[in-house]
Amino acid sequence: MVEVVKSTFAEQYPLIIEAIKDCDFIALDTEFTGLSVDSEMKPSLFDDGALRYQKLRETASKITMCQLGLSIFSKTSKDNQYEAKTFNFYLYPCSGYGPVDSRFVCQASSLKFLCRYDFDFNKFIYEGVSYVNEVEEKQIRDHIDVASRIGLERDIDENALQKICSIVANWIVNSEEEVKKLQKEDMEKIPTFLLNCELRTRFPNIRTTVNKIEKCIEIKKVSAEERLDLETTEVEDEKLYQQNTIEKCLGFARIFRIMKQYKKGLESTELLQFTSLGQVYTDLESDVGRDLVIHPPTVVHAEGFDRYHNKMVVHEAGFDAYMCGFVFLRIAHILTFKDTPSTDVIPCMFRRYLQSLDDYVNKINVIRASVNNINIGGNDDVSTRPELLYVRSSMLKYKLNIDQLAKWFSPYGSVDVKPLTSSRALVACGNYRCSKDILQAFRRHQYIRITKYSIWKHSPVVRGILWSGVIITSGILAYSLLPKSKNS
Amino acid sequence: MVEVVKSTFAEQYPLIIEAIKDCDFIALDTEFTGLSVDSEMKPSLFDDGALRYQKLRETASKITMCQLGLSIFSKTSKDNQYEAKTFNFYLYPCSGYGPVDSRFVCQASSLKFLCRYDFDFNKFIYEGVSYVNEVEEKQIRDHIDVASRIGLERDIDENALQKICSIVANWIVNSEEEVKKLQKEDMEKIPTFLLNCELRTRFPNIRTTVNKIEKCIEIKKVSAEERLDLETTEVEDEKLYQQNTIEKCLGFARIFRIMKQYKKGLESTELLQFTSLGQVYTDLESDVGRDLVIHPPTVVHAEGFDRYHNKMVVHEAGFDAYMCGFVFLRIAHILTFKDTPSTDVIPCMFRRYLQSLDDYVNKINVIRASVNNINIGGNDDVSTRPELLYVRSSMLKYKLNIDQLAKWFSPYGSVDVKPLTSSRALVACGNYRCSKDILQAFRRHQYIRITKYSIWKHSPVVRGILWSGVIITSGILAYSLLPKSKNS
Repeated sequence: MVEVVKSTFAEQYPLIIEAIKDCDFIALDTEFTGLSVDSEMKPSLFDDGALRYQKLRETASKITMCQLGLSIFSKTSKDNQYEAKTFNFYLYPCSGYGPVDSRFVCQASSLKFLCRYDFDFNKFIYEGVSYVNEVEEKQIRDHIDVASRIGLERDIDENALQKICSIVANWIVNSEEEVKKLQKEDMEKIPTFLLNCELRTRFPNIRTTVNKIEKCIEIKKVSAEERLDLETTEVEDEKLYQQNTIEKCLGFARIFRIMKQYKKGLESTELLQFTSLGQVYTDLESDVGRDLVIHPPTVVHAEGFDRYHNKMVVHEAGFDAYMCGFVFLRIAHILTFKDTPSTDVIPCMFRRYLQSLDDYVNKINVIRASVNNINIGGNDDVSTRPELLYVRSSMLKYKLNIDQLAKWFSPYGSVDVKPLTSSRALVACGNYRCSKDILQAFRRHQYIRITKYSIWKHSPVVRGILWSGVIITSGILAYSLLPKSKNS
Repeated sequence: MVEVVKSTFAEQYPLIIEAIKDCDFIALDTEFTGLSVDSEMKPSLFDDGALRYQKLRETASKITMCQLGLSIFSKTSKDNQYEAKTFNFYLYPCSGYGPVDSRFVCQASSLKFLCRYDFDFNKFIYEGVSYVNEVEEKQIRDHIDVASRIGLERDIDENALQKICSIVANWIVNSEEEVKKLQKEDMEKIPTFLLNCELRTRFPNIRTTVNKIEKCIEIKKVSAEERLDLETTEVEDEKLYQQNTIEKCLGFARIFRIMKQYKKGLESTELLQFTSLGQVYTDLESDVGRDLVIHPPTVVHAEGFDRYHNKMVVHEAGFDAYMCGFVFLRIAHILTFKDTPSTDVIPCMFRRYLQSLDDYVNKINVIRASVNNINIGGNDDVSTRPELLYVRSSMLKYKLNIDQLAKWFSPYGSVDVKPLTSSRALVACGNYRCSKDILQAFRRHQYIRITKYSIWKHSPVVRGILWSGVIITSGILAYSLLPKSKNS
């Protein structure tokens, strides 16, 4: 693994781009500052693909990415062998460039979750590589286009700058002099180049020139037309400077664009249900896992990328990305040859794996929803979850307490409970076993009756009731699942 | 200064409470994760007291406090001498106790601002002292009241817990046995006490007992009534445990309540306009400052609290609180004796200072607003800002560009520009000098005409226009002021 931070990014950039261009596939993993921005955005077993996608999208636009791992896999010349180049990026949103100043939500428990895996928040905030989205990029370009290069540089002393500007403003209004010199000692330690830009931006009716020998700035009162003529010759320099500024702001977004262009991305998403990525990796990497189907692909860390050699660093984005890529290769191998007699299995090229994975392209695994995955390239699969359960109070006086129901049912597995009226509720179960156990266990319950839900029997206005209203999620399980969802 | 973090809080708590009870006054300073959650919440020179209060309130409810300084001042037996006990708290919102899981907004530039002063974000997130507001406290109490102590402890392995619960659920439904023993090796490293609580909470029809000798948990199938009888004797233990849990969650809120009770708080708010707290402190602490009025109060750091001795650590909440208290004493002294001949000035008690500060009680200094302070104990003062300026395009074709206007005007001081129509705009100036300079400088401008704004002349529907609509803030000044507002 190679760590990428703000101070090393420019130097590492060509290496990263080269690796992306040359590779067979890229596994990607991210760490975020939250999982759900409020209770309505929590995953629920009632969610269909479209609703879950909407929840994820809205959440992702409000939280921020603090770490991103790219594990870049290339086939070596040896049979079945791949080489992995893994980069672990700390990311921090671009701020202070013109109007761009991102606000992001942190979920207290999500940051605490990262603490368990020794996440370094100082590296995230002090040393995170910048990035912008397309809206922000446009804002920065617009800001630069108003011919103001200053305001882009946030590291100058604003009080000192204001002091100088007041002096100049005063001089313009009150002095009869045509020319004024700002000497080194007048400049309050602000770099000459930046001060020069700032003065030009703020005052339309002056012409400034940096006198490099005397190290002073000469200010001359001019008309706007005169100034325009004088500045035309400087346009080319300006453009170069602007390009550099924009590249600095774009930061990681530049890499992401290259990845899109080469279409080699593979998102980290657990391929086996109810099983954590770490566990699947350990299983497939073991001797038993290796021999499930003969001639499995093997992976070596590329030279200079061996910080993950013989070491599990789960929940560091780089390592999770690496595990994801490794698991992807092994499962692809198993799927490719699952119906082939052992004797016919042969070492194969990467593209053969891709052919056997056609059914899985663009399908994003989701947990705790009515579907197992979201298909971002077409229609979602039909739900394979058990039917909903219908709960009603069996005593006139007894009103259903949703938290209480969630506590009663949660020992049997993942459940979400949604109130219909004070005496009726729906329950979504994660699997058939759970549904069956609940029906069985509460057969002769003192306060409630449970049956399988029938849309004809139990609701004349099915859709309206089913997909609206507040969903109250299982008290115990939801809280435990959320901070750990990757492990669920 | 004494630093207070999660792991030291319980031990330091009595010391802090004692200091609060015994003191003359407390200075308080806070560091937050943001200053404005979106552009509508930005401070503007158009804000009156009520609007600014509303903005601050909404912002404060969305961002979070990451550091809090308490500087606790007590008069010593020596004339004019005070002793300061300064505590610097790292705070982090309570999370993972029942349903409580705070979401807070971070502003990218605000965290970068804290970086400039070496803020330790790892200490904030890993080691911040817990706190809750009253709503959250109620949620925790309600959660505990459902007799579920578990779900409060987030540090257990949820996967392991789920595994055990499934075994028990299975046993309840399918086994004929009346009693089951969970041995040490069945417990998956979950502490016996916690597992016992969890089982009781999840399964209403069992009775669990911890066998301390065999270190196992005995589970017996019982009816709900039988269980109730058996548990009555344990109620007292339970209550004690609940009390401890709540105190742990409350954390810093316990200290805040003591402060409210003793009413000795003094919020950090710069007392002199346009001057940073650090500068005022340095000035008043200098030889010249000391001799402004004779017999000034002096301050020593209490024994064991001397980490700030001869050291400026600006923007650490503890040090800012200490400076605030120091400046408060010195200014109180100056105000108390400003009309007294030097020969009549005598060392005085603290309460005499309080009497002379009556006019300032409950007034919160605000920057960049139409008023200088918000009075949280009565009516706001009348604005002392200059009249608004009225800008109109002087050429039919020329449409006003708000960013351009802001750039033209900002060299003359703090300004905010608000569009009325495509050819008219209002400008609020921070002071009379700025307003006068702008009127003068743009007298014969090519594109725009500026006059003082007259509500009769320029607007038939004054209020509607004035206090609604989007406020676009000066491009240059706003961005530089915001991240540094404490210094402005």
